[in-house]
Amino acid sequence: MSDTHTLDTLIQSLRRLPGVGVRSAQRMAFHLLQHDREGAQLLSRALQDAVAQVRHCTLCHTFTEAEVCATCSDPRRDATKLCVVETPADQAALERTAAFKGRYFVLMGKLSPLDGIGPRDIGVAKLIERASDGVVQEVILATNFTAEGEATAHVIGQALKSRGFTVTRLARGVPAGSELEYVDLGTIAHALVDRR
Amino acid sequence: MSDTHTLDTLIQSLRRLPGVGVRSAQRMAFHLLQHDREGAQLLSRALQDAVAQVRHCTLCHTFTEAEVCATCSDPRRDATKLCVVETPADQAALERTAAFKGRYFVLMGKLSPLDGIGPRDIGVAKLIERASDGVVQEVILATNFTAEGEATAHVIGQALKSRGFTVTRLARGVPAGSELEYVDLGTIAHALVDRR
Ligand SMILES: [Zn+2]
Ligand SMILES: [Zn+2]
Repeated sequence: MSDTHTLDTLIQSLRRLPGVGVRSAQRMAFHLLQHDREGAQLLSRALQDAVAQVRHCTLCHTFTEAEVCATCSDPRRDATKLCVVETPADQAALERTAAFKGRYFVLMGKLSPLDGIGPRDIGVAKLIERASDGVVQEVILATNFTAEGEATAHVIGQALKSRGFTVTRLARGVPAGSELEYVDLGTIAHALVDRR
Repeated sequence: MSDTHTLDTLIQSLRRLPGVGVRSAQRMAFHLLQHDREGAQLLSRALQDAVAQVRHCTLCHTFTEAEVCATCSDPRRDATKLCVVETPADQAALERTAAFKGRYFVLMGKLSPLDGIGPRDIGVAKLIERASDGVVQEVILATNFTAEGEATAHVIGQALKSRGFTVTRLARGVPAGSELEYVDLGTIAHALVDRR
């Protein structure tokens, strides 16, 4: 298809999306061009706007359009408790339980030595700085209960404890091997109450 | 995430892609914003360019940036044979066999009464007009060997035969129930030779 340079470029660009191979990318491009050009335009603009406007909260690291995110700026949240999660999706899962009223720190990743992702990449120094504000009294580790999430919790826990912080971990009510995002609300709520 | 309007909009826009649910859309948005903002910008531009520049070949209906696509303009192709396929991906599969040197007509779809897609939507009238150029001597039906593809071949075949056209169908060397795009080259080549 030598006279379809822009189509080929679109297919290549769609392959940058995680989990999208060449067949899926073709299917997506054909679908948009054949049946949903309005959707293609909306997506184009949404990508542009998000890249331009979405940044990281200076306090908790999550995605926000403001200097400080809504959760960090909410005066009703208990500033003495700081819950550490891997991703905004995990934070959203915890929020849905309505069992936690403290603040968050979002790692935006997890330790993954095989991928070359170490403590520096997930902002451990920034977390220690955040927890040292004189207000935080307890850091709750709510990383996933996968091998990488446990390793992340271990490394962060050690770093915090050696500096005198009180560190707790979600109770093992959460089934081992699972990701918070996919766990039912009751289990997460129970694990919050039983944190150790 | 009330302070993440552009992020929410991005997630909603990604859901317009076929096969992308809310979890995948979140994952894609997070990945792009956290790890591949360059990819997000490339995809945004690629979508914009494709919508602006990709149109349909006036002769065969496939995607092209020109008035007439490269295949239709190629004087070395046998203009007496016209091969009808459902999608550009199916056409590409036939091209990879190198067993067909004629021209194509791309339906850009298939009959699907349940989805309200009838003969008009897949351009049967345009196909008849195309086949009536005085040069085409044989129309080869190469729609998929699925229920919908067979129904499409049947309806198109009847319409063409009733107007006196010579109509053939890919031989059943192609395993029933399968889609051309995923069939090995040898099988497609054999089915082309044995067309009936
Ligand atoms: Zn924040
Ligand atoms: Zn053409």
